[in-house]
Amino acid sequence: MSADQGDMPLGPDGQPMSKKALKKQQKEAEKAAKKAEKAAKQAAEVEATEVDDFAKDRYGVAPLIQSQNVPDRTLIKLQTLGVEKDGETVWLRARLHTSRSKGKQCFIVLRQQQFTIQGLVAVSEIVSKGMVKFAATVTKESIVDIEGTVLKVGQAVEGCTQQDVELHVKQMFVISAAEPRLPLQIDDASRPVTEDEDGNQGPTVNQDTRLDNRIIDLRTTTNQAIFRIEGGVCELFREALRAEGFTEIHTPKIISAASEGGANVFQVSYFKTKAFLAQSPQLYKQMAICSDFDRVFTIGGIFRAEDSNTHRHLTEFVGLDVEMAFNYHYHEVLKVIGKMFNYIFAGLRDRYASEIKMVSKQFPAEPFKFLDPPLILEFPEAVQMLRDNGVEMGDEDDLSTPNEKFLGRLVKKKYDTDFYMLDKYPLAVRPFYTMPDPNNPKASNSYDMFMRGEEILSGAQRIHDPELLVERAKAHEIPLDTIQSYIDSFKFGAPPHGGGGIGLERVTMLYLGLDNIRKTSMFPRDPKRLTP
Amino acid sequence: MSADQGDMPLGPDGQPMSKKALKKQQKEAEKAAKKAEKAAKQAAEVEATEVDDFAKDRYGVAPLIQSQNVPDRTLIKLQTLGVEKDGETVWLRARLHTSRSKGKQCFIVLRQQQFTIQGLVAVSEIVSKGMVKFAATVTKESIVDIEGTVLKVGQAVEGCTQQDVELHVKQMFVISAAEPRLPLQIDDASRPVTEDEDGNQGPTVNQDTRLDNRIIDLRTTTNQAIFRIEGGVCELFREALRAEGFTEIHTPKIISAASEGGANVFQVSYFKTKAFLAQSPQLYKQMAICSDFDRVFTIGGIFRAEDSNTHRHLTEFVGLDVEMAFNYHYHEVLKVIGKMFNYIFAGLRDRYASEIKMVSKQFPAEPFKFLDPPLILEFPEAVQMLRDNGVEMGDEDDLSTPNEKFLGRLVKKKYDTDFYMLDKYPLAVRPFYTMPDPNNPKASNSYDMFMRGEEILSGAQRIHDPELLVERAKAHEIPLDTIQSYIDSFKFGAPPHGGGGIGLERVTMLYLGLDNIRKTSMFPRDPKRLTP
Repeated sequence: MSADQGDMPLGPDGQPMSKKALKKQQKEAEKAAKKAEKAAKQAAEVEATEVDDFAKDRYGVAPLIQSQNVPDRTLIKLQTLGVEKDGETVWLRARLHTSRSKGKQCFIVLRQQQFTIQGLVAVSEIVSKGMVKFAATVTKESIVDIEGTVLKVGQAVEGCTQQDVELHVKQMFVISAAEPRLPLQIDDASRPVTEDEDGNQGPTVNQDTRLDNRIIDLRTTTNQAIFRIEGGVCELFREALRAEGFTEIHTPKIISAASEGGANVFQVSYFKTKAFLAQSPQLYKQMAICSDFDRVFTIGGIFRAEDSNTHRHLTEFVGLDVEMAFNYHYHEVLKVIGKMFNYIFAGLRDRYASEIKMVSKQFPAEPFKFLDPPLILEFPEAVQMLRDNGVEMGDEDDLSTPNEKFLGRLVKKKYDTDFYMLDKYPLAVRPFYTMPDPNNPKASNSYDMFMRGEEILSGAQRIHDPELLVERAKAHEIPLDTIQSYIDSFKFGAPPHGGGGIGLERVTMLYLGLDNIRKTSMFPRDPKRLTP
Repeated sequence: MSADQGDMPLGPDGQPMSKKALKKQQKEAEKAAKKAEKAAKQAAEVEATEVDDFAKDRYGVAPLIQSQNVPDRTLIKLQTLGVEKDGETVWLRARLHTSRSKGKQCFIVLRQQQFTIQGLVAVSEIVSKGMVKFAATVTKESIVDIEGTVLKVGQAVEGCTQQDVELHVKQMFVISAAEPRLPLQIDDASRPVTEDEDGNQGPTVNQDTRLDNRIIDLRTTTNQAIFRIEGGVCELFREALRAEGFTEIHTPKIISAASEGGANVFQVSYFKTKAFLAQSPQLYKQMAICSDFDRVFTIGGIFRAEDSNTHRHLTEFVGLDVEMAFNYHYHEVLKVIGKMFNYIFAGLRDRYASEIKMVSKQFPAEPFKFLDPPLILEFPEAVQMLRDNGVEMGDEDDLSTPNEKFLGRLVKKKYDTDFYMLDKYPLAVRPFYTMPDPNNPKASNSYDMFMRGEEILSGAQRIHDPELLVERAKAHEIPLDTIQSYIDSFKFGAPPHGGGGIGLERVTMLYLGLDNIRKTSMFPRDPKRLTP
């Protein structure tokens, strides 16, 4: 655990520090933390004693904002500060990212989300010694209101996003103070993890510490970018589908019967009876299609009581679900979904370029590649590619996770795409409601889709005929009474239809080339984690 | 229950029928249903015997669509058919809404979602007697592929949306047959409910029958419109907020501790421990704010284990949640939310005019009125308005539901608006995390918002100071250990912030002036209903 340790990885010259220098600095930082606490006490005394401080109205702890008054001032966005504002005096609200005091001056870095600027509190006609002392005692991560004059700098401020200017502080008020000891340091949590251990530039924060202290961890530039990108995935998903005539619906998460036999389903106490959490909105999407909504999508929680402790499983995740009636061939569905994915990929690339860059600074990844139209492989082709590369598998075997990844690499090499669709899965490995292939009794009209070799969508043409559905359920040895209402849904005229379910966190993770799904779930849930 | 009863409420002349005529017609319909079943059997025989039927390739039951082949044909949208298509021959897929056979011809009505057109299958050079017989045996709600020639009609077809043309059928294939006996009739479920019982024009369908057979009920024009409007509410909500710099987030529904003492919360078995379903995303929204996301919204399931069997309570509903940091006054939040609501109201009015009209045909309601900017009332003003109109209540009493409704009528009368905000609720009736009013110890910085006199949003400035939060929790006698992680969220610098939670189904219900929230939940959940 690196809590209570570490500080900026850059030296006072703005250059990365050697390991030795870093260790030394860490020790100093620990000392400094103790000092800071001491100083905080002293600051109170300073305030009490230096009543004749000429600057005393220009700094301090502001009263709790209860909406009691509205000062006549405009708070500007830090990211707008540059040389064109040279000489202007502005107010802003920001976090104190770091501070370093040296005699009569205190260097601070202010942060707003992913943007940072250097500030200087230095003794002058406006700033008193007491004010500099006060500035030095403000704890990191505290929120402050600052009035300062923007001044062009001679040499670029390497450690900040606003490199051409610094802020000469004239007033400084603490709006919300952070406790002096942070459970993790933003800088540690922001440090790139290189594969070579020796290449590391300083302490990093392990995942459980991050997640246990998620409200601080989420403040890193990388996390700010990741969750903005994730919001973008949802937006682009909806834009693409609305343009194709889809209606957004909402489906219940509390259901009376566990679908597909009841494995891996969470049980809920429902008044005097019991219920379950939906493992998928599929039945409800299909009912909406049988109810003439023609094309629907839904975004919502998906719950899986699987005891899978892997880099890509969550017990609760966000499902992006699509279902549509088609005319004669389920490839109509594949086409719509493929177009949608390309819209998402292109939209992320074009609208979130700066966020993607930010993430790749900490977690380097190759840019995501895709083809237009997307590549569609048939299952037997995939099996052949694997066999040609030494994998032994039967025609009707499902792909194992390692084989999926391997196939992803083979596809990337051959077709130069990180996204593809795998069509015509063996009937035997798909759920009972999957439409059999009319031309090949061992195949089915079903598909998975992959990003960087990992599955992100599973879908199919569904059986819309109640008799065939019964026949297939029997073949799967599913007791009919558990699925009777599902079967009944198709008894009053049902159009041919298909669709698929997408895991939001997986799409975000794989688009960005991240290694763990917990990085793309704001408050992840797995068999071992229920908090925060 | 009106299942197995009823038919079109219009006579063959297209005019509404008298009650007597209707009853007679109903009996005939029952007879007809029995006849139809018989006819279905005969049809099979017809097919078998009339092998020399010259039209035999132009009708029948199509093979199950398994994507086996793609005919070279374009299926058109029924709503595009009008006089400008006079003489054209088209293919379309639609439901058989009704059929009526008379000797050598069979009148049918075809339906696609909310659109209908009259069709005619009549003996001719192309259509055989066998084909007319076959058409007469196709069950209502079956999905059929039809080739027909569009022909202008002399007199408007009153019962259909496409009034200027009818379709002369040349080919007819059943794609998916409905069972002959429907649990409810679309026409019954579509019939306007007038307040005067005698004003009714025919049988209607009660709510439980509707909900038990939701996939058929959802096919009515009204339901098609309602759920498209509801999708629109979500879309407009997001558009308004993204324009104001909000980020979309997702919050967990499975939580480790029941917030606010554990009343009304559903319990979940979570592997070897227990967990709860979130009653609101509030803690997580606030954490996102403390994590510098600045402005966030989230749309997702909300779960309330309240045994409330009313017209406006569900145990599971869709929450539209907003949270934002503000600078100095929580009215900044009120302004953003007010602007957002006006954007939704105007957007529905402008983009969903035809859907709103459709709903009002079955469920008449006054158009929804709102002011720009929205009206903000203060709680004491509201109390005064109620007292002036004979209501007795204390200054610190909460509003009862009847008083809210009454106040809504008074506000409508005085200000001519169906939407308003009620600000500055008594501190005593609000949750512990509500920011007290700095100028009045009995008031708080909190608000509710109302549509047609019913609450649709509850919100407030939240306490962002951990010490004040502890003080208020103690005042509410909440054990601190149950909310420690909530309190801790504010210990590392938290900006002043506020927000609110909106019930999607309530907004849709009240915008449309509907009387029951089950009308705006596609698959509603209440203490007595867990299916479908």
